[in-house]
Order: sequence, then C-alpha cells, then structure tokens
Amino acid sequence: MAVQTIAENTTSSVDLGPAAALSCRECGERFELGPLFACASCFGPLEVAYDLPAGSPEELKKRIEAGPNNIWRYAPLLPVPADVAEKPNINPGFTKLVKADNLARELGVTGGLYVKDDSGNPTHSFKDRVVAIAVEAARAFGFTTLSCSSTGNLAGAVGAAAARAGLRSCVFIPHDLEQGKVVMAAVYGGELVGIEGNYDDVNRFCSELIGDPLGEGWGFVNVNLRPYYGEGSKTLAYEICEQLGWKLPDQIVIPIASGSQLTKIDKGFQELIKLGLVEDRPYKIFGAQAEGCSPVSAAFKAGHDVVRPQKPNTIAKSLAIGNPADGPYVLDIARRTGGAVDDVNDEQVVDAIKLLARTEGIFGETAGGVTLGVTKKLIEAGVIDPTLTTVVLNTGDGLKTLDAVSATSQATATIKPSLDAFRAAGLASA
Amino acid sequence: MAVQTIAENTTSSVDLGPAAALSCRECGERFELGPLFACASCFGPLEVAYDLPAGSPEELKKRIEAGPNNIWRYAPLLPVPADVAEKPNINPGFTKLVKADNLARELGVTGGLYVKDDSGNPTHSFKDRVVAIAVEAARAFGFTTLSCSSTGNLAGAVGAAAARAGLRSCVFIPHDLEQGKVVMAAVYGGELVGIEGNYDDVNRFCSELIGDPLGEGWGFVNVNLRPYYGEGSKTLAYEICEQLGWKLPDQIVIPIASGSQLTKIDKGFQELIKLGLVEDRPYKIFGAQAEGCSPVSAAFKAGHDVVRPQKPNTIAKSLAIGNPADGPYVLDIARRTGGAVDDVNDEQVVDAIKLLARTEGIFGETAGGVTLGVTKKLIEAGVIDPTLTTVVLNTGDGLKTLDAVSATSQATATIKPSLDAFRAAGLASA
Repeated sequence: MAVQTIAENTTSSVDLGPAAALSCRECGERFELGPLFACASCFGPLEVAYDLPAGSPEELKKRIEAGPNNIWRYAPLLPVPADVAEKPNINPGFTKLVKADNLARELGVTGGLYVKDDSGNPTHSFKDRVVAIAVEAARAFGFTTLSCSSTGNLAGAVGAAAARAGLRSCVFIPHDLEQGKVVMAAVYGGELVGIEGNYDDVNRFCSELIGDPLGEGWGFVNVNLRPYYGEGSKTLAYEICEQLGWKLPDQIVIPIASGSQLTKIDKGFQELIKLGLVEDRPYKIFGAQAEGCSPVSAAFKAGHDVVRPQKPNTIAKSLAIGNPADGPYVLDIARRTGGAVDDVNDEQVVDAIKLLARTEGIFGETAGGVTLGVTKKLIEAGVIDPTLTTVVLNTGDGLKTLDAVSATSQATATIKPSLDAFRAAGLASA
Repeated sequence: MAVQTIAENTTSSVDLGPAAALSCRECGERFELGPLFACASCFGPLEVAYDLPAGSPEELKKRIEAGPNNIWRYAPLLPVPADVAEKPNINPGFTKLVKADNLARELGVTGGLYVKDDSGNPTHSFKDRVVAIAVEAARAFGFTTLSCSSTGNLAGAVGAAAARAGLRSCVFIPHDLEQGKVVMAAVYGGELVGIEGNYDDVNRFCSELIGDPLGEGWGFVNVNLRPYYGEGSKTLAYEICEQLGWKLPDQIVIPIASGSQLTKIDKGFQELIKLGLVEDRPYKIFGAQAEGCSPVSAAFKAGHDVVRPQKPNTIAKSLAIGNPADGPYVLDIARRTGGAVDDVNDEQVVDAIKLLARTEGIFGETAGGVTLGVTKKLIEAGVIDPTLTTVVLNTGDGLKTLDAVSATSQATATIKPSLDAFRAAGLASA
C-alpha cells in the first residue's frame, strides 16, 4: 500500500518533537511516526503518543508563558519540532477567552461564563489550529502538496497555511459550492478543483487519490495526516486552562462535527492534569449538534453506544457530518465526565448567533450558534449548572455564514435625511 | 452650542488617564477635555495633549510588556482611565506583525519586510482600535448612545463595541448599502438607520443631529469624539515598534482615507522617541491611495500644500474619502520624513490582494491591496529602498470585500470524480 511505503521510507529522519509513535485507539498497537491513519491490525484510528516533557510543572508553565502568542507556546506538548516557531506557518491560536458578563446575565449564569472566540484565528476558524500542525507533519514526511476535501473553513485554512509554508496546495470541493466560498478558497492561489458530485463524492475521490501513484507526495490534512492534524484541537484545552489561570473549567460546551475536536479537548485536559499544570478535579464536557444533523445527540439520548448515520439538513454546514468518525468516543466522554450531548433547531441557531452578537459583540458562525444554543437549552433544562464556571466555544466567523442571519438582521428604519423624519422614527431617546 | 454645554458640565469628573487637555492643531489653544472637535478660536481640529508618564524607559517598557495582549498595554499613553482593561470593551490590537519573507522575495526586498495584519482585530479591521478608545471617551462624558455614519467597517466596529460596553448604538448608513454590509452592521442588535441619500447626505444629517437636542447624550465616534477616537491609531505605531524589538521601522506604508491614521502613526513614533522607548533615528512614511480617489497623492505629486477634493470612483470603498480632512497634515509628514504619497489603479489593487494571499496566506481588504500595490510600485520606482526594514499595513479583511477578487478567484478546474479525469487535468505533479 502506497501510504505505508512512504511511512517506512521517512520515519528514520522524522523529528516531531515529543511525538513518539502512533498508537491505535482501539487495540493500542504502536506504529512508527508516518502518514498513517488506520491500524494495520484492527483498522482502528491512530493517534499520536508522546514522551511528555520531564521537569516540574512550574518550570513548564514558565516555559509556556515565555513562548509566542500562538499555539507554538505549547510546542513541548505537540507533534512538532522544537524550532517550529521559526518556520513559516500560519501561527494560529492564543485567541481571546472573553469573559461574557452580559451574556451571563441574560442566561442567569453566576459562576463565570466565557466564550473562547476562535474567529480571531488567521482565516477566522479553529481549522487554522489543526492545519498548522498538519503542515509540520507534511514537512516532516517530505510532502510537497497539501490537500483536503472541504466545503468551507478547511479550504481557506489549507490554502493560507500552504501559501505561507511554501507548499503547493490542491483543495477539492463540490463543483456547485456557493460562489463566496469558492472565492475564499481560491484567493490563496493554490489549485482548487471542483468535483462534479456532492461532498461524499469528493471524499471518495480523495480516498482513491491517496492510494494511487498520482497522489504521491500529497498530504491530505484530514486523511493521511489526520492523527497529527487532530492534535491541533488540544491547544484549545491548553489555552482555556492557561487563560483561566491554569485551572480547568467546570463545564465546557463544544460543537460536534466529526467529534474529533471534543475528544482532543478532553485529551488536552487529561495531559495538563498528568503534567501537574492544573489541579485534578472533575469537569463536564457537553457536545452540541444541530437538530438537522444530530446523530451523536440522538445516540446520547437513546442511551446507545453506536451512532446511526443521518442525512444532514441544517444551516450549520460546518457541522454537517452525518456519520461522525469520533461519535462513539464523544459519547464515552460525555458520559464519563457527567456531561451531555444535545441539539437545537436552525431557528435556535440563528437566535443564538444574534444573542452572542448583541450581548458580547462577537459575530459567530452557525457552529457558534449551535454551541451557544445548546448551552442555553441545557441551562434552562438544569443540566448545565449556572453556578459553575462554563466555557462555550465559538469556532468560526459569522462573515462566512452571513446567509444564516440576513433575513432577520436588517435596518431598523429607513428615513429621509431630516431631523423631523428622525424624530418621527422614535429612535432619539435611549 | 449643545456640544460645549455638555463639555462644560462634564469635564470636572473626567478621568482619561494621561490625557490632559485638547489642543488645537492649528493655533495651539488648549481646551478642557470634553466632546469637542473644533477649536473655538480658529476652527482648527483638536487633538489630545498628554502628561506622558515619568520614569525610566526601561520601567515603562516592562510595564507595557506585562500588560494585556491588546491595546490596553499602552494605556499609559492613551486617553483612557488606568483601569481600562477591567471595563467591558472590545479589546482590539496586538495583532500579528508578520515577517513576510515570501513576499519579500517576490518584491526583491532584502532589508526585512513585515505586514502588520489588522484583520486579526475583533471585527477584522483597524476600526476596532479607534472605536475602543471612543467607547472610553463616551463613558467618561456620560454618553449613552454610540453613533456614527458608515458604509462598512466602522458600522460593525461601533455595533460590536457598544454591545460589549453595554451602550446603545445607532448607526447611520446610506439606504442602498449592499446587503452583506447591512447584515454585518445589523447583527449586533443596535439601531441601524438607512438614510435616503448618499454618504454625504448621511454625514450632513449626522452633523445636524449633533447640534440638536435630539442628539443629546450621543457620542458620534468620528465627530464629537473624534479627537479621542483618532488616538486609537497611535497603537499601530506602538505595536509595530514593540514587535520589532522596540525599534522604529525604516519605512512604513499606510493607506489614506481621511489621513488620520497616518498622522497618528507618526504621532505615536514621535512619542516613543520622546519617551526614550526607541532610538531616535530617521524613518520614512509613505501614503497609499487608490487612483480613483487620490486627492492627496495628486497634491503630493503636484507639490501642492492643499488637497483638491475628488469624486471617488474605486473598488477600495473604505478609502473613498474625496475630501480628506487630514490631507494637508499627511503631505507635511510625507515630505518631512522623506517619504511619498502614491496611488494604484483598481486592477493593481486586485493583483496586490492576490499577491499577499498567495505569498503569505493573508487575505486583505481592498485597502490592504492599495497599500501593498503602492509599496510594490514605489519599490519598482526606486523610491522605497529594498535594503531597509519596511512595514506595510493591512487594515482590513478580504471577507468583507469578496467582490473585488471574485472574478479572478475561481476553481482551477472542474472534473468528474475519477482518477482518469484528474490525470487529464494535469494537476498531479508538483
């Protein structure tokens, strides 16, 4: 198999810092670092295993705090070389953790409510985090083309990161993608290929390409680089804890697409506990889906361990994965931590986007609306405890999903340019 | 006059940190801090005068470096109270200064080329900096409504900042503004009023409103709060110098709309020199305009001291001010520092946007395209020295001006989902 051949040829010279091996999340078998994504024994998904840094927690904290204002401050905990900050990369992360007091008042939260606002990343979504790590893996394995299938955020993140890193990029999209998204993906000047078919067809085609000599030298960030790529989401856990003063939040609400982000945030929390960087105390992880694509929420509510695929139909397109690869792991984590998984409908998503904008001046993507909408629902249902510290993720930018709010975000009034007209409109007094 | 009455009533209790007074940029007369914008003696524009902090440069540096990762780290140099970071505000700034090595190679710059990327601000333009300061002034003067006239970036910045600060907002726009921009302004939930007329009509109406009892309690960020608002642009100078290791750049290229930003960056550099935070050595300031709105560039080339108004016609709408208030000051600064003012046409603007995206993964607004386009032109003309350190400003986000690049940013190919089709498209090899 082409993929394994590449791995065998390159592992000897691979320097990915503390990353020691790939290990199977199902059977635990270990493999040398390489562009592998499935266990050769049981076909389970692979993840990065580490030799975590030695030394006292205080030393490590100091080292991190003296690092750059981006994810590379956590290089000792990531599958990247020690000199990663010197290499050309998109340098995402260390986005704002906004203390959302106005929103807290509206929701009746008294224990501290925070929004982790990843719209501050270079291409304005959390995807910059995962792609930045994939870039380093691509370099380590000698890949010259960075690729992915995408319907939105990922395309821009790959195009931008490849441009900065000096890699060629080739992004595959469904041929009938909305014009705005095509432009956002194409502007970085890489190859952008429309595939005549739907997103499933695009993915199928990419899988074929990976196994074919035509795809030699290609790193597909979310396929053959997936074990590395996924680790980028751990940085959300690190940043949240550091920004809370090296403390775990009591509760965190995370959107679910494939579910990878949620599992990696849990992994990040566990690593910080193991390293003594935060106190080991209980935290609850909540997952958020849109009703129109809620396979994990449905399984959680039904008490199932397996996730039954759905055909997505929601405005939250960046979460519209009907058969989420990490669904079962998400269910485990939500149950283990005493959290939950729930969903809201599209109208609630729009309401939540506008609630966040109105109270905190943060214009989130539909995924952010899903997450805040579920947070509100779970607070009202008494599932999320309003007296505890709660973090809500906003993983993307409202500018990319303007259509979701356009019908209800319009001028309050249209008047002639005269004081009389203004007086008649009744907008003068506060 | 209503404005002066408010000033007289409020100055006694005003705490705006090191801001000591307003002083006239023409005749030097000083006024107590208040919502004033024109000199009562000569009608010249007012600006903030400071009691700058005492103490050694090293102490001040340390204090700044220990501050938050936003403009409030410079609170000792801004017209804001000392506890500003504790108040709800949008907290912009400390955006990336990107070492643009790929771009430098393409442009033949060997002395170090940097892009100050203000698309990383909360609403993705530099306007967040100026509005954040205006919010503090509004609070200090007891205003309850934050207002402005706008055709784009400013509307979003005011809406977002007012939401966070707990102020009411009322933004005035031309009634026929593009749908996307209306949505971006309306989503924060403030009042958004379409005025039947063009942008000049909107401005005229706002001026009437400020002088009328209907506008009592209203802070127009770019009118009666303008002296404070403008100071926000100084933070660009502070950040650039700090990020260069407390050094002045040799050359800096800045877009010109009203010209305020350019004059304030010069003011910021001068303050840092005076405080001993940077070595006092020559720097050159270059101004960039779009050909379709180039009154300052035209005056510079003609050797004039006055700026003849133009009727704007350019895709760089955020720079389309035909009668720039600070034009004469810009001419002074460009000439005093040995810089220049130049312009590029819309095609060059688009090319520059795409050049920046392709080389550095930064998708800038049309204003960024203007600035980089002029940089390229002046390097080619031998006016900007490629052997010296050069900083180029990107003041906004490409997501807000997608139309500018949509015609030329499209898929490279559209194919059927098969390896044969992919092979035929000739995209396989690097």
